[in-house]
Amino acid sequence: MKLSKKNLGDRLNHVYDVIIVGGGAGGLSAAIYLQRYRLSCLVVEKGKGRSFWMQDLRNYLGLPPTTPGRDLLNQGQEHALSLGADHLRGYVESVEDEGDTFAVKVKVGKTDSAYPVFRSRYVIAASGIIDHLPHLENMQNVYDYAGYNLHVCMICDGYEMADKRCGLFVNSEGNINTAFVLNWFTPYITVFTQGLFEVSLEMRKKLRDHGYPLVELPIKRFLGQDNEMTGVELIDGSVVPLETGLVAMGSHYFNEYLQGLPLEWKGNNLVTDSMCRTSHPRLFALGDLKDGINQVAIAVADGALAATAIWRETRRAAPPRLWEEHLEPHLAESSVPQPAEATS
Amino acid sequence: MKLSKKNLGDRLNHVYDVIIVGGGAGGLSAAIYLQRYRLSCLVVEKGKGRSFWMQDLRNYLGLPPTTPGRDLLNQGQEHALSLGADHLRGYVESVEDEGDTFAVKVKVGKTDSAYPVFRSRYVIAASGIIDHLPHLENMQNVYDYAGYNLHVCMICDGYEMADKRCGLFVNSEGNINTAFVLNWFTPYITVFTQGLFEVSLEMRKKLRDHGYPLVELPIKRFLGQDNEMTGVELIDGSVVPLETGLVAMGSHYFNEYLQGLPLEWKGNNLVTDSMCRTSHPRLFALGDLKDGINQVAIAVADGALAATAIWRETRRAAPPRLWEEHLEPHLAESSVPQPAEATS
Repeated sequence: MKLSKKNLGDRLNHVYDVIIVGGGAGGLSAAIYLQRYRLSCLVVEKGKGRSFWMQDLRNYLGLPPTTPGRDLLNQGQEHALSLGADHLRGYVESVEDEGDTFAVKVKVGKTDSAYPVFRSRYVIAASGIIDHLPHLENMQNVYDYAGYNLHVCMICDGYEMADKRCGLFVNSEGNINTAFVLNWFTPYITVFTQGLFEVSLEMRKKLRDHGYPLVELPIKRFLGQDNEMTGVELIDGSVVPLETGLVAMGSHYFNEYLQGLPLEWKGNNLVTDSMCRTSHPRLFALGDLKDGINQVAIAVADGALAATAIWRETRRAAPPRLWEEHLEPHLAESSVPQPAEATS
Repeated sequence: MKLSKKNLGDRLNHVYDVIIVGGGAGGLSAAIYLQRYRLSCLVVEKGKGRSFWMQDLRNYLGLPPTTPGRDLLNQGQEHALSLGADHLRGYVESVEDEGDTFAVKVKVGKTDSAYPVFRSRYVIAASGIIDHLPHLENMQNVYDYAGYNLHVCMICDGYEMADKRCGLFVNSEGNINTAFVLNWFTPYITVFTQGLFEVSLEMRKKLRDHGYPLVELPIKRFLGQDNEMTGVELIDGSVVPLETGLVAMGSHYFNEYLQGLPLEWKGNNLVTDSMCRTSHPRLFALGDLKDGINQVAIAVADGALAATAIWRETRRAAPPRLWEEHLEPHLAESSVPQPAEATS
């Protein structure tokens, strides 16, 4: 059920099988699988994650390519709730390992916040990432285009950028190298650094050799209308016409609540095994938070894998269920078939 | 585009980037990713695979839990075609490694068959499995219930069997062990061997200790109506009432066309790396055909992984695309923005 400040008290004496941090594609898929494995779970969702911002989910089997990411999330949340999952809008502040259980402290509500602590045997970290965006004075101007034709994921949207005049927005020399992958889709690339860092002579030469202009002046604003970005105005008033853009400025990883735990990291990503288990035997990591490619389809499969690993372990530790007649639900008289009644 | 005997001739001189054997969840997901990576692919689909038979796809994020498997396949096929994938109804007879390319021989049409040979740089084996079903004189009687409440996948449908009186249909002593996993969902299990094999004394005792009846008489027919199986009639006319059933009789693996290639197998499954690459560097395997759990979500992610690995390799081998002005598409005059026109 949906939990809120008003009704969450009922759950504070309960030990969930699993608390899932993050209600994106991975977390919701895990919740669906766990509930179907007859395990109990609580999804804690802070809201507005990366898939929430996707205007078109163009590469996920089964949904039309114009499906917004939030439709996937709404459907998944309804699906998980229908199977008995608990769902709470809140922000996980910390996860403490108590030996057999985890204590998960959640901030609920932006004002008059409550700080309930929930307990579970396992934790699934599915809190994902969010992309850094160019920082302009008027951020609404950035949000008007981000997720539309100002993209953040080349695998997701390279196809939409094909052979278009594309701005590549970066905040480090390393990220300029994105240009030399992006050029699989389009070679009409202008690199914008906003003057945030010094570009090496070697990189300048490489860009020149490829014919990719380098623009170092800060950006005043994106130009366009109806969420269609058509160029960039620089602080000197000059305009660079564009047809699309890719932001490659790194991401913020929502992993602060894990910092107290002894986990193996690869950069900002958690290292996991083939079932998404981290180096902590009761902690799993999914999707963008773990090492691998950041795709909805991958996160959804990760949810299935982690849930299956937890189910297997829980099942193997449980006593076998015997057929004990006194416990058996009564088989309705009318449902007992007779051969004469059979229709096939 | 959709290929058929009439128009496939156009494609016989073409070398596809990838030929995908199987148009199920994994194959279609791969096709969508490959086309979005601007690689060319042909999907060869024999029809009526495992997901085609699923009446309800209950655990796939984004789709209502009553979505039939064939809806997913229809949507995916339309999606892949819209991106320019080729799709052919046919049966892959053989795959021959020619060094840089594979020659893929397809049987098209059940009568007056054609046997075209297509070529590609990579092959993705996504041809899946199909479950063995109890063999009765009237197979239509089995098809009336299989995929409804006579299930073939415990992970998919264990939830629907919970605490119900369940028939477990097996064809080997090893498969009887399924009962001791199934009892996580329900302990009201009757095991049906149809007398196909001798059950050991040890297994008889184990079943007795759990309270699970063992029925060795051959089955005459399933009873029920409107695709709802309500029991089994044995050849002696006796009736065993049931509320649901699980068939655990193994599967047929559609991998005959791979037998000539030197590949690493684990039983009937292909061994793959984390990107679904087999021991052959240009051959990938997805979903049920590879080692792992057999789930739509996994196959869909596998398609994304294999396509990404193939794209990376192809891209790295390609010359870099430079911004050459004489090749650039003309930017429409009207689309060049002026600061004064900007709306945000």
